[in-house]
Amino acid sequence: MKRREFISGAAVTGAAVTAVAASNFPKPAIAQGKMEWRMVTTWPKNFPGLGVGAARVAQKITDMSDGRLSVKVYSAGELVPPLESFDAVIRGSAEMCHGAAYYWQGKSKATNFFTGVPFGMTANELSAWVRYLGGQQVWDEVYAQFGAKGFISGQTGVQAGGWFRNELKSVADIKGLKFRTPGLGGEVWKRLGATVVNLPAGEIFQALQSGALDAAEFVGPYNDLALGFYQVAKNYYFPSFIEPGLATEVSVNKAKYDALPKDLKAIVEYAIQSDYEQVTADFVANDPRALDTLVNKHGVKVHLFPEDILKAGAEAARNILVELREGGDPLTKKVVESYSSALKMFRERAKLTEQPYLKAREAYFKDL
Amino acid sequence: MKRREFISGAAVTGAAVTAVAASNFPKPAIAQGKMEWRMVTTWPKNFPGLGVGAARVAQKITDMSDGRLSVKVYSAGELVPPLESFDAVIRGSAEMCHGAAYYWQGKSKATNFFTGVPFGMTANELSAWVRYLGGQQVWDEVYAQFGAKGFISGQTGVQAGGWFRNELKSVADIKGLKFRTPGLGGEVWKRLGATVVNLPAGEIFQALQSGALDAAEFVGPYNDLALGFYQVAKNYYFPSFIEPGLATEVSVNKAKYDALPKDLKAIVEYAIQSDYEQVTADFVANDPRALDTLVNKHGVKVHLFPEDILKAGAEAARNILVELREGGDPLTKKVVESYSSALKMFRERAKLTEQPYLKAREAYFKDL
Repeated sequence: MKRREFISGAAVTGAAVTAVAASNFPKPAIAQGKMEWRMVTTWPKNFPGLGVGAARVAQKITDMSDGRLSVKVYSAGELVPPLESFDAVIRGSAEMCHGAAYYWQGKSKATNFFTGVPFGMTANELSAWVRYLGGQQVWDEVYAQFGAKGFISGQTGVQAGGWFRNELKSVADIKGLKFRTPGLGGEVWKRLGATVVNLPAGEIFQALQSGALDAAEFVGPYNDLALGFYQVAKNYYFPSFIEPGLATEVSVNKAKYDALPKDLKAIVEYAIQSDYEQVTADFVANDPRALDTLVNKHGVKVHLFPEDILKAGAEAARNILVELREGGDPLTKKVVESYSSALKMFRERAKLTEQPYLKAREAYFKDL
Repeated sequence: MKRREFISGAAVTGAAVTAVAASNFPKPAIAQGKMEWRMVTTWPKNFPGLGVGAARVAQKITDMSDGRLSVKVYSAGELVPPLESFDAVIRGSAEMCHGAAYYWQGKSKATNFFTGVPFGMTANELSAWVRYLGGQQVWDEVYAQFGAKGFISGQTGVQAGGWFRNELKSVADIKGLKFRTPGLGGEVWKRLGATVVNLPAGEIFQALQSGALDAAEFVGPYNDLALGFYQVAKNYYFPSFIEPGLATEVSVNKAKYDALPKDLKAIVEYAIQSDYEQVTADFVANDPRALDTLVNKHGVKVHLFPEDILKAGAEAARNILVELREGGDPLTKKVVESYSSALKMFRERAKLTEQPYLKAREAYFKDL
């Protein structure tokens, strides 16, 4: 019942009613009233890193606006099924959604690029593209079709490559492997020979245990530890070349966002922006602790992927991106072109900065 | 004269006076009044990346508070000399300062760690330490001595290693080299054999031209291009192992910050937080464009440092950090211990994620 009210009715608290009664005073109702926005999410409640980030964005908006705009969070399935969250924003039954743009690739393949693609941008590269090299503009064009606007709102950083029952010696070992991995990444693994399956998070463990799956990838140590995969698959491979930086998004109903007064618009924008890096920090801080538990308490074996798998993965990824550029709609083509020209520049920078620095630090710097 | 007023007087605009006159209404003056805060900075006006970041933080606070708290920015030297900016915050003649914590190492060597140290943390690692692994707590302890609080407010990412008149073949070529490089990084180069000089940004070009300097490092392509070093030194080395991630800070006068109402405190905090990653995005987007100009228009030769320089640099950096831990005050020791135990964890993560991912992307992925 309560849910129904939230879906159909205006989520405005008592204070706004007072403001209406006092409407002979020359102040906008919104200045005295208190609004409540509904944030649907694609994450389970308290989901490490990502669900926690959604709750934190809501709290930041509420705090900065002193409750003039308070945001109530609905975890996956609480108000709508997780994969219908964006539809709820489009029709206005929720004002905002915390999720990942690539969940909506049924609406446009271009959405993949606002989340992250195989062999694509890292966390800071993606935000450089979005904020400085035209990424936000093309994103706005894509979402204008749906009356929505998207903001990058969090980042896992480079993920783990997956859990495998058996060791991988070369690309030949992938043939016929029943592997849980969704989206464009799944397409890459399919081209490497895997039989790709998509399963919701909650069903992966059982499928690994029953032998329905030989392997699965999810996020990284921080999330994967909680799901218990280590109990049935002991080989943990790095890095994820299919998810080298997965951005979450907050999408908002554009008409409702545009109707906010300027200060509240700024509060929504910067609350979300402030969380992009905080989510990364959460993963950077907590992944190593979880990995330590996996290795030292649960006997997990950590591996790097064999070089020939990385090489074949890079070729498959490139082919898929070219196909998206050439085979899709004109707007997707425009997005792929904008993304790939920025990526080309970023590779030049990484080759001279992060990449040789991390290599030298690993090779030569000894812990204190 | 105007400056004097700002230094000694309360920077409160007319609206606050109105609020005082209307004080028989049961509303806090601050809710109706408008406050102005002074932000001194250590950057020249419109300094790419960093000075621009300071102005943007000020604007974000002003926008989100709808002008209740407006922040006026003073570029380097406008209100106080740049290196006296923190003192201005301490005595309250400015409410906040946008600069870099390591400029105040005369007050405490511990400040280096909130900016970045040789062979230390990258951008996302530093924020993971500050936000999740005790960095902010030890920072608060250090700044409590000065009645201040610091926030990380921007990040250059991995910088360039420097401009050299002659090519470097090995560590032997460093002996006697007159090199402009400040701080702990300068100490590293000194131990590698360089004669280290510190000069303000505006004097570097002339010193290179006159032969008073053989080499200089500043930030990276985005800033260095503007200073014209390429005209007199053609060899540009990467990566900076002494500044692998330089964080800027906003310091605030703690008493004035604590006196803000809760919503304005949140606005100040998240405005600053939102800019940390935006500054990085600015550098990631603009460094490659500047480097392209340097190479293709000005004939600059880009090099990676020889391996033996990286190795000797790592050993010198470690020795310096150990000396800071053992030879300083107890609080600096505590900061070094907190930093180095977090860094140890982050290295484990980078070794499995960013590092092999960037290597594979560089080796195997072809531009679209």
